[in-house]
Amino acid sequence: MKGLWLENKQLQLLSDIPIPEPPPGEALVRVLCAGICNTDLELTRGYYPFTGILGHEFVGIVEQGPENLVNQRVVGEINAVCGQCRFCRSGNSTHCENRTVLGIVNRHGAFADYLCLPVENLHIVPDRIPTEVATFTEPVAAALEIQQQLTLQPNHRVLVVGDGKLGQLVAQTVALSGCELLVVGRHPEKLANLEARGIKTGFADAVTDKAFDVSVECTGDAQGFAIARRALRPRGTLVLKSTYAGNLSLDASSLVVDEITLIGSRCGPFPLALEVLAQGKVDVQPLIHARYSLSEGLAAFAHAQTKGVLKVLLEMH
Amino acid sequence: MKGLWLENKQLQLLSDIPIPEPPPGEALVRVLCAGICNTDLELTRGYYPFTGILGHEFVGIVEQGPENLVNQRVVGEINAVCGQCRFCRSGNSTHCENRTVLGIVNRHGAFADYLCLPVENLHIVPDRIPTEVATFTEPVAAALEIQQQLTLQPNHRVLVVGDGKLGQLVAQTVALSGCELLVVGRHPEKLANLEARGIKTGFADAVTDKAFDVSVECTGDAQGFAIARRALRPRGTLVLKSTYAGNLSLDASSLVVDEITLIGSRCGPFPLALEVLAQGKVDVQPLIHARYSLSEGLAAFAHAQTKGVLKVLLEMH
Repeated sequence: MKGLWLENKQLQLLSDIPIPEPPPGEALVRVLCAGICNTDLELTRGYYPFTGILGHEFVGIVEQGPENLVNQRVVGEINAVCGQCRFCRSGNSTHCENRTVLGIVNRHGAFADYLCLPVENLHIVPDRIPTEVATFTEPVAAALEIQQQLTLQPNHRVLVVGDGKLGQLVAQTVALSGCELLVVGRHPEKLANLEARGIKTGFADAVTDKAFDVSVECTGDAQGFAIARRALRPRGTLVLKSTYAGNLSLDASSLVVDEITLIGSRCGPFPLALEVLAQGKVDVQPLIHARYSLSEGLAAFAHAQTKGVLKVLLEMH
Repeated sequence: MKGLWLENKQLQLLSDIPIPEPPPGEALVRVLCAGICNTDLELTRGYYPFTGILGHEFVGIVEQGPENLVNQRVVGEINAVCGQCRFCRSGNSTHCENRTVLGIVNRHGAFADYLCLPVENLHIVPDRIPTEVATFTEPVAAALEIQQQLTLQPNHRVLVVGDGKLGQLVAQTVALSGCELLVVGRHPEKLANLEARGIKTGFADAVTDKAFDVSVECTGDAQGFAIARRALRPRGTLVLKSTYAGNLSLDASSLVVDEITLIGSRCGPFPLALEVLAQGKVDVQPLIHARYSLSEGLAAFAHAQTKGVLKVLLEMH
């Protein structure tokens, strides 16, 4: 089969990868569509040493697996877990200490004709969600994780920093809480996507200091963090939703004086994400900036790294 | 009156300071005893530009004020607030945006014969608490703030990093929750204080990685932070209880991947601190390493900065 293979920060299109044999408990999934995420781009830059097939946002058809799943269109949770360790047993299985992660840690990913995942990771995609839209299940779930970690009230003033792929989805899911929301970014055309949905947007200078109860940092850079930090009232909460290249330097004393809470936020609930997508409560269509076939995968990656580009999809079949 | 005056990082003993006239709503307090805190030492090193009389941990006798307080022994909350701003009105008055802070921000402090504080800041000290002991009300309240911010359960594994003044009080108050507690530090004789109270202690090498639900950083240095961080399980909580000189550099991506919560923690509830001290649930006597008169204040400061020394008290009358 074909696949986009990463090795020593070099991404190559291979065409002679054997179709994987699913081990016991896993299903073989033929990939229909996959999305390129910032984590994929970071991996090609060496953020984490991964060798193998990249990709973790996908929709596919089960070809081998339990009867109720075969021929079904599915999405898949990316953490393949042991079920035995202390974190799995305590209900924190996304933090399993023996986990592999699809296309990220010790497990081949979705930028290929086929992938394998544990059966329990798979969720059937409701018919009314188009395949392209369902490809966003994983990042929408990650955005929804914020509201698993803290309760947003309608009277909360919430700031989302970043108008990229992640910021767009975080903004749309945060808006569902009915809170008072402002999204700041640097790209008028990206902010316009959100304005079109009735979400208030602006540039960084629209942020009043110490005016927000919650801020969500979706840029992964130090300037974005600084904006999210200065926006918070004392006893406010800053959600770190993005990964950072290298260390972040921060004024820890001011966190103490202002009694700020910082929360790291990662993978979220797939069933809820599918529900939100099925109900059309999040609109991902404006985020799709390009579609490529798997054979054009390297061009797709080049495109995805271009300034101003949101989601680039790979369509396999 | 006499007072320890800080100006341009220079601490001097002045003897000709006028006794202050309490403005409306404030009481005049004759100071009996005051404690030197790390924040005082940091202020003499320029942590924050303060000019005036230092000191914020004290017990005194009200000389002028409302009838029910005159001649009473009192302690005082250190934030003098406006009661009008959005933070005061939302129940976060310790974060008042117009606040002055006793001996720290725009208000003369307790290392003097007299001080003034708003009447509502004062709490009568129960007779059974000796004056020396009551001097610890402010830091005990700060330690108790942790349990205002998060609930410690008996099955929680909690790590306290630091065996200094703050670590000692944090450890003793955290222990009241009945949680499984380990305190790590560098000074066998300080750790012995805690062992004597049945609290488990050790050096940093006693800390198992990813084994604790909660860690409390009480050292104010980067190594202490590193220990508190590596000790935490995924989704664990790190409480920042100490201020830091300069910026702290941290791996923000690992906070995201492990979904860690960081909480800054400052001033706490005085009534609860007095209750805990009255019931003898926290023993501060082993922390008192020296007593000086106010006239010997400069020597007291020199002593307080000596390695291994815990609390140095100034006794005024």
